[in-house]
Amino acid sequence: MTINYPNGKIYRSPIKEITKVKKTASASHAKRGMKLEDQLSESNAYYLQKGIAVIHKKPTPIQVVKVDYPKRSAAVIKEAYYRHSSTTDFNGIYRGKYIDFEAKETQNKLSFPLKNFHEHQITHMKQCYEMGGITFVIIRFSTLNRVFLLESQHLSLYWEKQHSTDQRKSIPLTYIEEHGYEIEYGFRPALDYLKALDTIIGNENK
Amino acid sequence: MTINYPNGKIYRSPIKEITKVKKTASASHAKRGMKLEDQLSESNAYYLQKGIAVIHKKPTPIQVVKVDYPKRSAAVIKEAYYRHSSTTDFNGIYRGKYIDFEAKETQNKLSFPLKNFHEHQITHMKQCYEMGGITFVIIRFSTLNRVFLLESQHLSLYWEKQHSTDQRKSIPLTYIEEHGYEIEYGFRPALDYLKALDTIIGNENK
Repeated sequence: MTINYPNGKIYRSPIKEITKVKKTASASHAKRGMKLEDQLSESNAYYLQKGIAVIHKKPTPIQVVKVDYPKRSAAVIKEAYYRHSSTTDFNGIYRGKYIDFEAKETQNKLSFPLKNFHEHQITHMKQCYEMGGITFVIIRFSTLNRVFLLESQHLSLYWEKQHSTDQRKSIPLTYIEEHGYEIEYGFRPALDYLKALDTIIGNENK
Repeated sequence: MTINYPNGKIYRSPIKEITKVKKTASASHAKRGMKLEDQLSESNAYYLQKGIAVIHKKPTPIQVVKVDYPKRSAAVIKEAYYRHSSTTDFNGIYRGKYIDFEAKETQNKLSFPLKNFHEHQITHMKQCYEMGGITFVIIRFSTLNRVFLLESQHLSLYWEKQHSTDQRKSIPLTYIEEHGYEIEYGFRPALDYLKALDTIIGNENK
């Protein structure tokens, strides 16, 4: 729905953006019913407000083809297309460390399908990791309502193996339970994923 | 111009994006004639390829209002608007440090107008700086063909002063010459701005 100001100008919300993420079944607990991306955006807003971390979601890359410049009002994009990003969706800084991650959900119950990721995301996380950044994925099993943080090295391992003879195309939940960090739902922030980073940074500094 | 594939699908370039930056007078030296943003993107591609740093420009935030989903082809955005970003344009990682900056040009010869920046960009850089990030602006005096890197603390200083009694609305070139780092044009990378960061990081570690 388009909302207009009384002067006829279009109201543009500074926060919401149309995304292609499918809606997941709403859960009894309001926060659990939110989309993973919204849960993370809310958590990031909390971290920012409290001076804990500065982490933002990058805008969706859009290829603009045609723009109208009407007199006395804002430029209107008349034709454009969604593009694939060459990086991940989220990055920022926490405890002086560069943070970079991607967030994805699945309705599967036993494993996380690798097809949720793109080659360039894996490459990007690897590049950042080699530079000393903290890189990971936040994955949500929406049917189980369980969320995990898994360092990108583990994802890379499965990513590279998928083209070999055994051809496993997903990461088993049991592996994620063992090598990842489960993130509990809370009120504020909705998903306190930085807690897991404290452990990771702590281990690095040992 | 729109280019179509033989199958009628529209060709979308993975790199170029329509930007609102005005073209500057072209200089004799090809690299100098490029827009600042392109010079930086080229430099970042070089740094990435050589494994020196991972720094990307964020996509322009666009508010999508109307999307068509034609059968058997990509979604077409039919109405959208440019939005203001809540962060800066560039961020990434270099030597394990979080890097965050904004790039701007002016045709002025004696000072850099503060109106080139937005309040939220100043706030964002301050937040990142307080977290331990390296935050700065890369400013180009296009008429003089001189480019400087200036740490965001200096910009903040002038930004806050502009509303006081003396009301200076720009940073004098002489101040930038004294407190910033001049970046020389090169072939590859076009603008080797990480050199200045080596000095900054070096001073931090002292």
